Amino acid sequence: MENEGSYVALGLKVWKTQIGRADKLFGSLSSEEVLREIAPGRNRLLYLWGHLTATHDAMLPLLGLGERLHPELDAAFISTPDKSKADIPSHDQVRRAWNVVNAELWKGFEKMSWSDWLARHTAVSEEDFAKDASRNRFAILLSRTNHLSYHLGQAVLGLK
Amino acid sequence: MENEGSYVALGLKVWKTQIGRADKLFGSLSSEEVLREIAPGRNRLLYLWGHLTATHDAMLPLLGLGERLHPELDAAFISTPDKSKADIPSHDQVRRAWNVVNAELWKGFEKMSWSDWLARHTAVSEEDFAKDASRNRFAILLSRTNHLSYHLGQAVLGLK
Repeated sequence: MENEGSYVALGLKVWKTQIGRADKLFGSLSSEEVLREIAPGRNRLLYLWGHLTATHDAMLPLLGLGERLHPELDAAFISTPDKSKADIPSHDQVRRAWNVVNAELWKGFEKMSWSDWLARHTAVSEEDFAKDASRNRFAILLSRTNHLSYHLGQAVLGLK
Repeated sequence: MENEGSYVALGLKVWKTQIGRADKLFGSLSSEEVLREIAPGRNRLLYLWGHLTATHDAMLPLLGLGERLHPELDAAFISTPDKSKADIPSHDQVRRAWNVVNAELWKGFEKMSWSDWLARHTAVSEEDFAKDASRNRFAILLSRTNHLSYHLGQAVLGLK
């Protein structure tokens, strides 16, 4: 049991580190800077930020931690590419949603026991989970952390 | 013990997935394409590929899996930024090193027991490890996987 806690603690530590980097990177941007493209013709920083926020929001039901807080973000940041809509959530809306969603996730993580992480996530049926037990909550944590790192690598290109 | 194996297996699965994505992305490039910048004035794809190869090579001693196979890569891809040297390893040299290093790492991973992953990595002293047991080999696996994802997010921008 002691060892199991170690693995989970490490997964959470890496998540927290990447969230901290994203907080610092996106949090430092002015409302003008957030509209910068990461490279000519590519996604804007605000789009990446909103995309990450929507993805993290969807982790709440996926990990059984509660209802989504900001499902409205998907229309602008998941189902459509950047610059396909004239009207997307504002800098302020994304910043607030980012902070609220990540705080809610962390609150949920802290309540989860070590073995909770090995339980199935809600997008897999009990039947499918019986065939492949790797489709669990810890897998979601690791893959979403890597998703965050992937887009952080891109966002940093838009900084200067 | 069964549960401990699950966490390690998940960590390895995410590593393998990201390596597979990198294999596909970098492996598809011609010797001309590999010299493309990911964005104007930014790193070239070959630099990112070499940087990842050197970083992975350094994991061999860090995880106690053996000596480095390609320490010579550091001069071009770790200690100096891209385009600071006229002469860097060729496309072919990087591709070969990438394949050899990742194969060697995987061979080592397969020999490690679940509890090996919670042992200290070799860059931390026994004394420091006694104070902070999170400085272990599983932490290296997770952080290097995220490092790979970070640069994959950048490399994909250089594809077209």
